Amino acid sequence: MSIPNFKHALSVKRADDFAQWYQEVVAEAEMAEESGVRGCMVIRPWGYGIWERIQRLLDDRIKATGAQNCYFPLFIPLSFFEKEAAHVEGFAKEMAVVTHHRLIGDGKGGLVPDPEARLEEPLVVRPTSETVIGAAMARWVQSWRDLPLLTNQWANVVRWEMRTRMFLRTTEFLWQEGHTAHADKAEAMAETLQILELYRAFAEGPLAMPVIAGEKPANERFPGADATYSIEAMMQDGKALQAGTSHYLGTTFAEAAGIRYQDREGGQQLCHTTSWGVSTRLIGGVIMTHGDDDGLRVPPQIAPWQIVILPMLRENDGDNALLEYCEALRAELAVRSALGEPVRVLLDKRPGKATQKRWAWVKKGVPLILEIGGRDADGGQVSVLRRHRLYNEAGKADFRAIARQQFVAAAATELECIQRELFEEARERRDSNIRRDINSLDELAQFYTEDAKFPGWIELAWSRPEGAELDAVADKLKALKLTIRNTPIDGAPVEGICPFTGKPAVERIYVARAY
Amino acid sequence: MSIPNFKHALSVKRADDFAQWYQEVVAEAEMAEESGVRGCMVIRPWGYGIWERIQRLLDDRIKATGAQNCYFPLFIPLSFFEKEAAHVEGFAKEMAVVTHHRLIGDGKGGLVPDPEARLEEPLVVRPTSETVIGAAMARWVQSWRDLPLLTNQWANVVRWEMRTRMFLRTTEFLWQEGHTAHADKAEAMAETLQILELYRAFAEGPLAMPVIAGEKPANERFPGADATYSIEAMMQDGKALQAGTSHYLGTTFAEAAGIRYQDREGGQQLCHTTSWGVSTRLIGGVIMTHGDDDGLRVPPQIAPWQIVILPMLRENDGDNALLEYCEALRAELAVRSALGEPVRVLLDKRPGKATQKRWAWVKKGVPLILEIGGRDADGGQVSVLRRHRLYNEAGKADFRAIARQQFVAAAATELECIQRELFEEARERRDSNIRRDINSLDELAQFYTEDAKFPGWIELAWSRPEGAELDAVADKLKALKLTIRNTPIDGAPVEGICPFTGKPAVERIYVARAY
Repeated sequence: MSIPNFKHALSVKRADDFAQWYQEVVAEAEMAEESGVRGCMVIRPWGYGIWERIQRLLDDRIKATGAQNCYFPLFIPLSFFEKEAAHVEGFAKEMAVVTHHRLIGDGKGGLVPDPEARLEEPLVVRPTSETVIGAAMARWVQSWRDLPLLTNQWANVVRWEMRTRMFLRTTEFLWQEGHTAHADKAEAMAETLQILELYRAFAEGPLAMPVIAGEKPANERFPGADATYSIEAMMQDGKALQAGTSHYLGTTFAEAAGIRYQDREGGQQLCHTTSWGVSTRLIGGVIMTHGDDDGLRVPPQIAPWQIVILPMLRENDGDNALLEYCEALRAELAVRSALGEPVRVLLDKRPGKATQKRWAWVKKGVPLILEIGGRDADGGQVSVLRRHRLYNEAGKADFRAIARQQFVAAAATELECIQRELFEEARERRDSNIRRDINSLDELAQFYTEDAKFPGWIELAWSRPEGAELDAVADKLKALKLTIRNTPIDGAPVEGICPFTGKPAVERIYVARAY
Repeated sequence: MSIPNFKHALSVKRADDFAQWYQEVVAEAEMAEESGVRGCMVIRPWGYGIWERIQRLLDDRIKATGAQNCYFPLFIPLSFFEKEAAHVEGFAKEMAVVTHHRLIGDGKGGLVPDPEARLEEPLVVRPTSETVIGAAMARWVQSWRDLPLLTNQWANVVRWEMRTRMFLRTTEFLWQEGHTAHADKAEAMAETLQILELYRAFAEGPLAMPVIAGEKPANERFPGADATYSIEAMMQDGKALQAGTSHYLGTTFAEAAGIRYQDREGGQQLCHTTSWGVSTRLIGGVIMTHGDDDGLRVPPQIAPWQIVILPMLRENDGDNALLEYCEALRAELAVRSALGEPVRVLLDKRPGKATQKRWAWVKKGVPLILEIGGRDADGGQVSVLRRHRLYNEAGKADFRAIARQQFVAAAATELECIQRELFEEARERRDSNIRRDINSLDELAQFYTEDAKFPGWIELAWSRPEGAELDAVADKLKALKLTIRNTPIDGAPVEGICPFTGKPAVERIYVARAY
């Protein structure tokens, strides 16, 4: 569809101001809003409903690997952090610190921390839980029989952020963090990569969000990790979003916390540990992968409602028959299964005009919207709008009249198709925005300084420099606002010369602007 | 069963030291442990698994009332609290206060809060969220059409506690908190009582824990509430446990936060709000309701595993056939439904002696334990131990051999019976430990100062005093370490004289020692 000056449901188009468009989707789809608490958001029912879907589906997959859910304290004593120097260095700059445990009146009607209730040892609000979980692992692991120890928790964490953006970077966010302990490096590395693959499959499955799974360069590792892997997704503005990470921590945290086991021969060994997480940031990724100029489009697998039925009520005697027809339709759909679960269908009986309600659901991105009027009911049919293909060639909402039984019979297949089409659309866009023909730093600089609005990613071969040599590369890229995203774990063999070092190239990397 | 000096799985008996017994169950069932962080516990997989069951079942019921889940910030600015004086008064003494957002090295290898990063306005870690949710409601509610507004969140909260006890009273705990706004008192009160009934049915259903639903006396109200209702359960030591509360908040919080709506006539009205919650404390209630001298007994509806199959492996060639038999049995059970959900059955193939593993599961309280040896497999049968009726008259684990197909066919009914029997057992104990024949303060004092170990509750009729008169009653009871638990909402009519005030009695109350 291409109609000049066409008016979409949102006031800002992606092509005009992507950042502003993003904020408008979050607001208009009623996903989240500012809370009045610096850097913290309120997640509203539609946003939280998507998170609940992500939790349910991901939790099942994590449990299927043998991990068990636990819950560890929100607060971490400073002394736990002080044990692991590199970890402190990475996090110490951005943590919320609890120093008092009581408030008292200030005599002027206000409240102040009670000086009498100052904590001897300040507590940090967890930015991540390696240290406190490591202390528990040291208690739980005694012998090789206790390994592997596979734990996971769903929790809130806090990292003090100066510039925040809903879902993408907030002071408090929700996530799952897996923490595992193993007998040796091979097993810990296998776990790290198993979870990386789990995240890849989850992103490309339920989220319909294509990603590159790979290893981060040394300068982008998690503080204290021996190796960090990530899944990286391309947003519609060409920027990269790190959407999940899996870390092989070596014996660093085991040493700090004393996680040791007796091996089969009776010797004492340090465990090798891993940690891995995804967060509410995924929701930001879903928005920037699937949203369009009319709002969000939610992949059916994570849509809180997959089908919404809107009866076109006229506030007259015909309404009862219409509602009965709609309720019968709802019930028929609700007993069906799609994508391995019961179909989630809502009959929206709230008062209000059907067109207003329609556009509210369009902006929320519900996959299938059914508008049912008296004539549909009389004729035994339904009018179906597929959210991901919203308009016909005339620029009108592309409602299609279908016999009710035919729609009910085909609804599951329809939802499965939408899930796949959203993924295919995103994958094609991603693939067509990766340049592989750039082989020098000059070309790279030119590519990103041209006036291209959404320039996408560069894939190139490099020599995997380390230390000062890597820092020099990172600095050059930083000057162009670029970062190395990762080295794909399934990258094809390389040849040629590294554009950064002039040495023989050994592996591929992706270079991009990033969130 | 009554055998002198019989040795149970736990080292401490309920009758000997109930508090110590409780700690031993929590430890031996591997439900939770001290974290090394003051007042905070680590919830281990078996404890957290029970919490996940509670969450899943309760969340479904809460959503069925029309409430939608949201997520609100962990941190609450002091200014939000200062708006509601009575609320501050109730909570100000026990909150964690964040005053800094960065740490720096102290030059001696340690870390200290960075004086440069002091917050202008300290943040409180939420002890409950009325204030921050009220601020959101004020944004969301404009007109009568926006009402009722029904929200819920699952979250962690922090109340600084001096003396903590796992699950029952911890500095950080997990809960759900519902918050609703309504057009008038009648609707808000109906919501308050609807949730009270939901909590009652949930406690007596999935938790198999009998409770009294009723109104708390004025001196026990939530800070800022007009009326507080609770469900109260009797623990095996006769003490009461407040297991859930539902508050009618009047217009107090609406006034503080400005939650106003335009009514049908165009006038501006204050909303009437409610809040209600249950927490991980419920798990403490389950332990003290159903635990016995061999550990926990988990009601089947909230058991992470309802059936555990223990193959009696002999580390010889027969093991493979035995495991195949057990796996087939597991698969047959897993496709069955009990209590409205698929049966949760685990085949425990870990190495180790079957009897050791049996007692570990006994202490965790899994409802049905199957031990399968080579002879069982050959004979097509299973040996079943029902955890809630553990011993035969000879004091041995009461294993019963049953034909495999017969067991599979009857498993759902068996689980349903166990659920009901646990409830009946607890209800009978509760009912037989409520005294209704005490009519004077002297008798009451005598009853509770006699050397009875677990004296239970007193039900009596009183005049519902208020103000100073109520304070005087509370003081007298406090001297006996007693509190008024609640006034049952379905209490029978009363007559006679209030033993506290000498005035005519108007309603019943329960008096008890409490957690």
